[in-house]
Amino acid sequence: MPEGGGGVAIIVQKYGGSSVADVERIGTVADRVAATKAAGRDVVVVVSAMGDTTDELLALARRISPNPSRRELDMLLSAGERISMALLSMALNERGVPAVSFTGSQSGIMTSDAHTNARIVEVRPFRVQDELRNGRVVIVAGYQGVSYKREVTTLGRGGSDTTAVALAAALDAEACEIYSDVAGVFTADPRVVPEARRLAEISYEEMQELAEAGARVLNAQAVEFAKDRGIAIYARATTGGDGETVVRRHPPRAPGRVVGVASETGLVLLRLPRGELGELVAALERLDSRAAGGKQLRFDGPLGASLVLSLENLHGYPALRHDLDVHLPGVSVVEGVGAVSAIGAGINASFHNVREAARLVGESGADVLGLATSSFRISLLLEEARVPDAVRALHRGLVGEL
Amino acid sequence: MPEGGGGVAIIVQKYGGSSVADVERIGTVADRVAATKAAGRDVVVVVSAMGDTTDELLALARRISPNPSRRELDMLLSAGERISMALLSMALNERGVPAVSFTGSQSGIMTSDAHTNARIVEVRPFRVQDELRNGRVVIVAGYQGVSYKREVTTLGRGGSDTTAVALAAALDAEACEIYSDVAGVFTADPRVVPEARRLAEISYEEMQELAEAGARVLNAQAVEFAKDRGIAIYARATTGGDGETVVRRHPPRAPGRVVGVASETGLVLLRLPRGELGELVAALERLDSRAAGGKQLRFDGPLGASLVLSLENLHGYPALRHDLDVHLPGVSVVEGVGAVSAIGAGINASFHNVREAARLVGESGADVLGLATSSFRISLLLEEARVPDAVRALHRGLVGEL
Repeated sequence: MPEGGGGVAIIVQKYGGSSVADVERIGTVADRVAATKAAGRDVVVVVSAMGDTTDELLALARRISPNPSRRELDMLLSAGERISMALLSMALNERGVPAVSFTGSQSGIMTSDAHTNARIVEVRPFRVQDELRNGRVVIVAGYQGVSYKREVTTLGRGGSDTTAVALAAALDAEACEIYSDVAGVFTADPRVVPEARRLAEISYEEMQELAEAGARVLNAQAVEFAKDRGIAIYARATTGGDGETVVRRHPPRAPGRVVGVASETGLVLLRLPRGELGELVAALERLDSRAAGGKQLRFDGPLGASLVLSLENLHGYPALRHDLDVHLPGVSVVEGVGAVSAIGAGINASFHNVREAARLVGESGADVLGLATSSFRISLLLEEARVPDAVRALHRGLVGEL
Repeated sequence: MPEGGGGVAIIVQKYGGSSVADVERIGTVADRVAATKAAGRDVVVVVSAMGDTTDELLALARRISPNPSRRELDMLLSAGERISMALLSMALNERGVPAVSFTGSQSGIMTSDAHTNARIVEVRPFRVQDELRNGRVVIVAGYQGVSYKREVTTLGRGGSDTTAVALAAALDAEACEIYSDVAGVFTADPRVVPEARRLAEISYEEMQELAEAGARVLNAQAVEFAKDRGIAIYARATTGGDGETVVRRHPPRAPGRVVGVASETGLVLLRLPRGELGELVAALERLDSRAAGGKQLRFDGPLGASLVLSLENLHGYPALRHDLDVHLPGVSVVEGVGAVSAIGAGINASFHNVREAARLVGESGADVLGLATSSFRISLLLEEARVPDAVRALHRGLVGEL
């Protein structure tokens, strides 16, 4: 039998869109993969589409149809990773490192049939294992899989992280490394908050909440997957150096300690008079085929029961909006909404953090449109344009020494 | 059971890259498909990649590797049709015409495993037939298939035509319509020869020779396929109107009648001293893994035995060139070569046409580097830059009333 395989440790590396945005950066990634292989590991590489490819394809689709078929969207969007993975495989072969690329389907990424927002239900990585045994680096298309109906599916934004963690689990990998243009997980987005600090480590639960609150560095479902299987995730910069963040099970910090701030934009706030949240949710569930792609947040705000939809992954908003107007004429729809969140285990154990968060956001110049808390998160709704100032205010006032 | 299927006639329509080059043109195609469906036919649409997508992807690959893995090239290039077919399917659904898109693999296009130049060996269009029975228009990715090893393959340039004809045969279609930006098959490329005329009909054999000599309007393998299965091909302009050309079995024209002129550029002429053509061919066959993608023409020229490679579909030329220098040091390599050809059944039955062709090309200002004839074709090799003048001269002197 060929070399490799057997007792050799497997490393899964995931490179995001900005890491493979052009031919030069694909070369940098190839060098890093080649070095890992040369250090004696078996390497599986998960790649996203190049740069803004996915957004560009989505924009084309929206020019053709305001409510494109989700099944066809998946066919369209899954083209992006084919391009990046084939190019990376060529770059490795060019460096004398045998490599082969596989689509999600070829890699055995089996998903639900919820197009544009599928979940991985099983990984059958037989072809990946065969090629590792043949001594090859295996490049896998992130973000995509195949349903039991043999249809191409995608996993929603950030889904390449989930592909990487799921493969790491299925292959019993030594580590899952997530490379991006940021060197780890920070207490806030450093482009918004220059004094943000890198976290040396963070628990699965905190990371999951940060991701769900809008931090882009890791996908929330990926973290959940890693938590369930006990896989440590190493978040690093593609350029190397500058440290890393390890996401793993670890003793909780002091309760109420805030580890980070995250934010979201592109939200739509739906409001009904107090007491009718159930009606609103039921109406959305009836319109499920269109709304299912959008993440739903439920808020209790000062102006009555309300519900927040994220436009991200919601590919039929104009049609949904029309249906809402027809079927739920009492609803008020506020577009251009954002949310800022502070995250930390036990964050709402006392009223202190909640009161402080509302005060800080208010003083930053925003009207608070809604507020929601959980034991890991305090989230405030506000006008989209006020998000950066509110993030800076929350970070300054709540994030202490870690 | 749903409507459609059963006795309803099936039309296969193929749209080339320029017909789906942008969102507006995809809309035009959708209108035409919708009209065909509304006329009571079952419609299968084969699409190429949008505009210059395939060439752009190839250029990316060549920046990464002068000799890219053919298997990875196929993975890369097959992304192009996914994009165009998904967008066309969305455009049809937007028009209220139910549609679904399938990859080559999903459509059952089974091919040989000769990556970048695979041949269709079987079509198993079960999913296509199921969806036609469901009343849907089926959009199929042209140019691609899947090998028995479950690897993605592509069919070489113009392969979408072959996909269309092969599907028409497998589905027992009423007609196979090939749409492009030209209204049928002309006696020469009208951009080069303004007085070129459309042929109302042409035999399979003549069309195949025209295509092999460089006419882009139809792919040679597609015509061969149609000939074997007796399928009539209708070549039309996507914009409609302006007539068509029918390719089918029909009584031969008067022997020696020239029906058209075609040309190729991007050729490389390999020459060895007289008597060593066998050695040259054997050396190329030894280097087969790289040369197989390139069409090979064998010429006997005034300067000895020679062989012509087309750089089209030849994805590893720098490596091949290097190997030739090492393994066949006596070979002379001339790049920047073109070929002009006159086509007609029985064209070389007398010396008249051959002598006239050589005289006309010479008088147009080109040195004739080589000459080859068959019962359907006279081809002359010349410097690439001289091709347009030579085409005009041959057309003026040889193509008579039809």
